[in-house]
Amino acid sequence: MAQPMPTLQISPAEHRSRCDRLAEHLAAQGLAGAALFDRDYILYYTGFAFIPTERPMAFVLGRSGERLLFVPRLEREHAASQPAVEHVEDYAEYPGDPHPMERLRAVLQSLNLNGPLGADEDGYPWQFGYRGPRLSELTGSPVFPLRPFVEARMAVKSEAELRCIRESVRWGALAHRLLQTYTQAGATETEVSQRASAEATWAMLEAIGPVYRAQSTFEHGPSAGYRGQIGRQAAIPHSLTSNLTFQPGDVLVTGAGAPVWGYQSELERTMFVGSPGDEARRMFEHMLALQDTALHRLRPGVPCSEVDRAVRRYFDDHGLTAYWRHHSGHAIGLRYHEGPFLDSGDTTLIRPGMVFTVEPGLYRAGLGGFRHSDTVVMTEDAIEILTDYPRDLESLIIPA
Amino acid sequence: MAQPMPTLQISPAEHRSRCDRLAEHLAAQGLAGAALFDRDYILYYTGFAFIPTERPMAFVLGRSGERLLFVPRLEREHAASQPAVEHVEDYAEYPGDPHPMERLRAVLQSLNLNGPLGADEDGYPWQFGYRGPRLSELTGSPVFPLRPFVEARMAVKSEAELRCIRESVRWGALAHRLLQTYTQAGATETEVSQRASAEATWAMLEAIGPVYRAQSTFEHGPSAGYRGQIGRQAAIPHSLTSNLTFQPGDVLVTGAGAPVWGYQSELERTMFVGSPGDEARRMFEHMLALQDTALHRLRPGVPCSEVDRAVRRYFDDHGLTAYWRHHSGHAIGLRYHEGPFLDSGDTTLIRPGMVFTVEPGLYRAGLGGFRHSDTVVMTEDAIEILTDYPRDLESLIIPA
Repeated sequence: MAQPMPTLQISPAEHRSRCDRLAEHLAAQGLAGAALFDRDYILYYTGFAFIPTERPMAFVLGRSGERLLFVPRLEREHAASQPAVEHVEDYAEYPGDPHPMERLRAVLQSLNLNGPLGADEDGYPWQFGYRGPRLSELTGSPVFPLRPFVEARMAVKSEAELRCIRESVRWGALAHRLLQTYTQAGATETEVSQRASAEATWAMLEAIGPVYRAQSTFEHGPSAGYRGQIGRQAAIPHSLTSNLTFQPGDVLVTGAGAPVWGYQSELERTMFVGSPGDEARRMFEHMLALQDTALHRLRPGVPCSEVDRAVRRYFDDHGLTAYWRHHSGHAIGLRYHEGPFLDSGDTTLIRPGMVFTVEPGLYRAGLGGFRHSDTVVMTEDAIEILTDYPRDLESLIIPA
Repeated sequence: MAQPMPTLQISPAEHRSRCDRLAEHLAAQGLAGAALFDRDYILYYTGFAFIPTERPMAFVLGRSGERLLFVPRLEREHAASQPAVEHVEDYAEYPGDPHPMERLRAVLQSLNLNGPLGADEDGYPWQFGYRGPRLSELTGSPVFPLRPFVEARMAVKSEAELRCIRESVRWGALAHRLLQTYTQAGATETEVSQRASAEATWAMLEAIGPVYRAQSTFEHGPSAGYRGQIGRQAAIPHSLTSNLTFQPGDVLVTGAGAPVWGYQSELERTMFVGSPGDEARRMFEHMLALQDTALHRLRPGVPCSEVDRAVRRYFDDHGLTAYWRHHSGHAIGLRYHEGPFLDSGDTTLIRPGMVFTVEPGLYRAGLGGFRHSDTVVMTEDAIEILTDYPRDLESLIIPA
């Protein structure tokens, strides 16, 4: 009996359909074909997840729909095991002799892709020491930029993609619940984070079973932690893990998520070690109101910039502008930050199927950082909040 | 009493000295200054470790030695806390309005960096949705490429850098020892890897104490695992973690390391679940001989390509070429892959202070992969093997 297709995986039919849309775009632009070098784009169009290094890789699509992966010899069997890939061509090694891009030139010629090409970058980008010729030097004609098209396609999620993101949200919430359970005064950031992440990972692997694939370069399952945003350090929004010890009075900013066949979600909460004082409570309530402001403004047809402007107005109207540090959120999917951005400078119109994090924050030196992040999907006429975790203050106090 | 400087940290004096060498290079090239956008270069010149996103960051160095970090508002306090940074200039947000690169143009003008500039890239590279003008468009003059100079400087490690790499090796070995201890038939990849990594991390944090900083984007301490290179899957060199269950007869390829103030090392071993058969033993012995071939050829003054050619000759002479998949190794430091590469196409001369992984491998479908990786440093006239872990077959059998 054939193994049933796991419901969380993107099907070969969906990969084919994504390629067909891109091939139509190539034809409409008068392009002979496309070369995509970006790891996330290759995963999006083929289902092939790999660790990007200095060895160039490319997904090549002809305008008639031919699909080929160009990989180093060491990735050949790995690439050929993908059902959505028809052809694999390899080169020996990087830097190698001849250079891998000479081999790519021959592959493009063998496919008769002799007209102008589209690409995400004009050649394989800098990565871990890579140097090589531009694609336009190989082909002798300028490269048509494909990033705007590909990013716009990736920004609107399919039902299959939303299933992955919903699953990601479920296990991110478990990791976060365990993080909250194990956090206590005297414990350290690293031990709490590792214990919560490990236990959530084991639970998820038991539940989904051996079909599970993270398809992520650095993550193997759900994780939750603080990234150094602890106590007064929480006033620095994007810190790095520092193995701090929790102390009574600390304001904490968390982060949790899980890669599910490459798809990500984001859950962040402001928590307190012991009951917070009046100023911290006031900041927390403003933070909730800021997030509500963004959530209420998020609707299909509205420009992203309007959401952020409404949030900035709340900052200004309540004398909080000194505590502003960043925009209101970003799209999320195969990358944990994607465009469009909920930013006063991003005029992209919000569309059904887009998935955003909503996370305005307040940062006050000497007091701490205050930020919740929820992941939401745009429906036809409203939003659905995918993350399901208490957001009220009393639920987020660690007894001290 | 002042806190003593941790011996493992790169000192502000060393950061200053690195900047001085770069400033001399700028002056010699007739450049007014430099803008570096690469996360690893910014860490190398300033000690500032951060999580790169769509928000552009740059380290700006004037030819007279002025040092400035250009960051988004949310990173201001974080950047300003670095002792090796004299000035921090920020912009509100990305994409923002005006665009952050407009603000960078003004910053460059305020520093009177009006002549031609050097840079690693002609503007902030694609990252998580970033789009913006090229640096040459902002300044109106072509950008002089600085990657070759910076990479050549980073390739030769100082004593302080080697102390970090030696410390990395120590804790990578502990994680690997625990991985070997916990691996057994019936266990799964993820549980064994997480347990070994967590326990090694806790031991390291106890030993080094709260001064420890990983300064790594995704790693918080030592880790060891298999990355899916288990059983027949081990024949695919760069696989991804798949939560496989260990079975008697599996050939395993491991990987272990630890970030220490950003510096990495690499320890990999071929292991067996139960005593291997004759063909596996034969492949293992060839793998050891291949690694010895590389180790014996590695000497200052020798081109990298010669090391790899000697290895390739061994493959050819012993009828093993069908099992070849990749070159013999790569430099390592703040990046886990750096150039130069031990590759037949890389003619860089080996110099004292360079640190390489040495890791020729054999991959045989239906049997498995065979690769050890050791991290070595070039001394004045020889090599020192930094990794210290058994490499003989009997020491690497998991009882089954």
